[in-house]
Amino acid sequence: MLEELKQKVYEANMELPKRNLVTYTWGNVSEIDREKGVFVIKPSGVNYEDLKPEDMVVMDLDGNRVEGRYNPSTDTATHLELYKAFPEIGGVVHTHSPWATVWAQAGRSIPSYGTTHADYFYGEIPCARSLTPEEIEEAYEKNTGKVIIEAFVDKNPMYVPGVLCTNHGPFTWGKDAAGAVYNAVVLEEVAKMAHYTEMIRPDVTPIPKPLMDKHFLRKHGANAYYGQK
Amino acid sequence: MLEELKQKVYEANMELPKRNLVTYTWGNVSEIDREKGVFVIKPSGVNYEDLKPEDMVVMDLDGNRVEGRYNPSTDTATHLELYKAFPEIGGVVHTHSPWATVWAQAGRSIPSYGTTHADYFYGEIPCARSLTPEEIEEAYEKNTGKVIIEAFVDKNPMYVPGVLCTNHGPFTWGKDAAGAVYNAVVLEEVAKMAHYTEMIRPDVTPIPKPLMDKHFLRKHGANAYYGQK
Amino acid sequence: MLEELKQKVYEANMELPKRNLVTYTWGNVSEIDREKGVFVIKPSGVNYEDLKPEDMVVMDLDGNRVEGRYNPSTDTATHLELYKAFPEIGGVVHTHSPWATVWAQAGRSIPSYGTTHADYFYGEIPCARSLTPEEIEEAYEKNTGKVIIEAFVDKNPMYVPGVLCTNHGPFTWGKDAAGAVYNAVVLEEVAKMAHYTEMIRPDVTPIPKPLMDKHFLRKHGANAYYGQK
Amino acid sequence: MLEELKQKVYEANMELPKRNLVTYTWGNVSEIDREKGVFVIKPSGVNYEDLKPEDMVVMDLDGNRVEGRYNPSTDTATHLELYKAFPEIGGVVHTHSPWATVWAQAGRSIPSYGTTHADYFYGEIPCARSLTPEEIEEAYEKNTGKVIIEAFVDKNPMYVPGVLCTNHGPFTWGKDAAGAVYNAVVLEEVAKMAHYTEMIRPDVTPIPKPLMDKHFLRKHGANAYYGQK
Repeated sequence: MLEELKQKVYEANMELPKRNLVTYTWGNVSEIDREKGVFVIKPSGVNYEDLKPEDMVVMDLDGNRVEGRYNPSTDTATHLELYKAFPEIGGVVHTHSPWATVWAQAGRSIPSYGTTHADYFYGEIPCARSLTPEEIEEAYEKNTGKVIIEAFVDKNPMYVPGVLCTNHGPFTWGKDAAGAVYNAVVLEEVAKMAHYTEMIRPDVTPIPKPLMDKHFLRKHGANAYYGQK
Repeated sequence: MLEELKQKVYEANMELPKRNLVTYTWGNVSEIDREKGVFVIKPSGVNYEDLKPEDMVVMDLDGNRVEGRYNPSTDTATHLELYKAFPEIGGVVHTHSPWATVWAQAGRSIPSYGTTHADYFYGEIPCARSLTPEEIEEAYEKNTGKVIIEAFVDKNPMYVPGVLCTNHGPFTWGKDAAGAVYNAVVLEEVAKMAHYTEMIRPDVTPIPKPLMDKHFLRKHGANAYYGQK
Repeated sequence: MLEELKQKVYEANMELPKRNLVTYTWGNVSEIDREKGVFVIKPSGVNYEDLKPEDMVVMDLDGNRVEGRYNPSTDTATHLELYKAFPEIGGVVHTHSPWATVWAQAGRSIPSYGTTHADYFYGEIPCARSLTPEEIEEAYEKNTGKVIIEAFVDKNPMYVPGVLCTNHGPFTWGKDAAGAVYNAVVLEEVAKMAHYTEMIRPDVTPIPKPLMDKHFLRKHGANAYYGQK
Repeated sequence: MLEELKQKVYEANMELPKRNLVTYTWGNVSEIDREKGVFVIKPSGVNYEDLKPEDMVVMDLDGNRVEGRYNPSTDTATHLELYKAFPEIGGVVHTHSPWATVWAQAGRSIPSYGTTHADYFYGEIPCARSLTPEEIEEAYEKNTGKVIIEAFVDKNPMYVPGVLCTNHGPFTWGKDAAGAVYNAVVLEEVAKMAHYTEMIRPDVTPIPKPLMDKHFLRKHGANAYYGQK
């Protein structure tokens, strides 16, 4: 069952080391099948070199393992919260990719300084607040999802498909696992460039709104004209 | 028709990922055949891994597609403006290469700090002004070309074969597509080194003119003596 | 004798160039067999391309070469001090990996700014004090071990499996040679991210203790739940 | 004639792109045969991918081409000055390797901040003064050699086997071409680490002399004990 979805999730996971987003096992990708009410995720702590499609773990939306011999990623409860709160998303990625992680460690949202950012993220990429000691103690991974959702109370998650978790690292998402990985790659590039932009011009201000609108909307929405569709 | 030119433009495009100047589809190269009055450019949003010489799109100088099953790059109108304004150039490149892009995001021209810069760019690499909201709305890609041309009103585009577009990224050019890619590689290297030069010495000043002249002119012009010609 | 241990130490050494932790011969790995009272270490100044398992050098705990045609690493006396002082450790690594080395050159301990650090190092990674001229003169490599041990007088070396030596570079350790190399990779990544975290937010403070505890303890100790065990 | 020397110089040149020290043709290596009174150097502006051992150019010590169908490197006159002034050296390298070049562009000597530097360079790596307009005009490449030599009036070139040329880039040397390339690799690594050391600790001071002496002298001179000799 779900062989095709396992294959897709496996391939999306394998993109992470290929794109230099993970060291060792520091990342995981999942994708949901909303009709069947299950999602498929990387097993916990398994090396990418050893990973096989059949190692992927199938979870239901109550957080129970439906299939698979391995434990799922420790971050599974975070993925689950995001799938429940954001009905438009189909895939989720977590990494410790260095540039996104340093912004997370600094506890700063990433300002939009250019069209590379605006092509994929409409406005700043928010840094979710720290968890309280009680939230960490009670249900760390689930509450990580909760504070992410809190940061999106006034944002469309399809317009800003990623977030930073303070002192931790990024989560991104997309219409499927491959799309979520794509956004993880973009986030890493954008995070790097935002840092150097601030170094080259400490008083830099964000991209003007008309240019941001132009770039985001030529790639997204009803009037998009980028690409072949 | 134009099989040789398509092949050259294809090969020049494939240099971009090989030289680490593009992530995903974030770049495009074109070359013009001035006798025939057409130019060949990368199709929009096609992955480099999938690209083939026959996918290249042939455009005329009124911006009409003459041949090819794909839409041309969304930046085609910018290339066209540059070909019309700068009769000496034969190839144009656009990328979001990170170091050039951070200077563009900072809205700063790149000072000439050394002979690596002076070997290929005679003086600073200008950052073109921001487009007005009206210019963005009216014809974004064409007006991007217009503000570039405005930045070269007092410059020889063959002496300074590249530019930064504020909040966006670089364009470079050359006598053909391969030459434009070469200049894109140089620009990226020069942009990186200019940043670190300023970090190592915040009060650094540009290269003295006699040294700049020596290096540019030993590679370019009537008295050049670099290489085998 | 000890063919298996030599093979393991050889493989651990070969991870250093593969993981971009060494230039030329600037690193060495050892592993101890505590029952037999010997440890195996890389020979001094031999290129990684030329290294073979049988080139590994066997040393006893008095610092005598027991087997091997080559001189052992010049840092052998430091490894030996660590094995004697820290009975829980089974492997030791020394490199000049650039990010750890720049913190060592700066003479600064690396603060814990995030969960990547907290997953493997419980609290800051200390920078051991400089050796006195007398300590350098008397027995440089042995006394390098002594000042490391001094920096751990109030620390558990299994909770903080690495150190910086002022003006020099890092040492890491672990339960075996492979574990020590793993920690060298983590240290390098953490050192890089700590620097950029400080650049992005100069007034950044270390990770809150509850989050540090959560991450370290979900991977280490009796209640760990990361991975498949 | 000199087939063996051409082969060695060819191989040393090919190390430059392999070690990421050159972009395109921005580097050259030579080696001298002092008995025969000739040196062999890379031809000017030839791509590394196309380079063959038989393309190397043989020069005499008056700067005349003795053998070879290509023009020698434009920097040949600088190499020649160094061979004449420093009788102990056997090989010379010039590159625009980025980290050494940014220090050159900043016009700063590289302080010795750690043992990586001290293992190969005894004290700071000097930045030679700018050439005067007259010196540039009169004989640029030869006078580049002259200002390097001026910077070594109180230094032993075998103890400090490299230099920065202001607004330009580095030259290194060694007992032969391979040794000069080795020092170019070390210089690049040391230049990078010196920059980040200053970023991590703006008030950092150079390595204490006893530690510098210990490291340089355990690798060089009569009492060296590093390696297998």
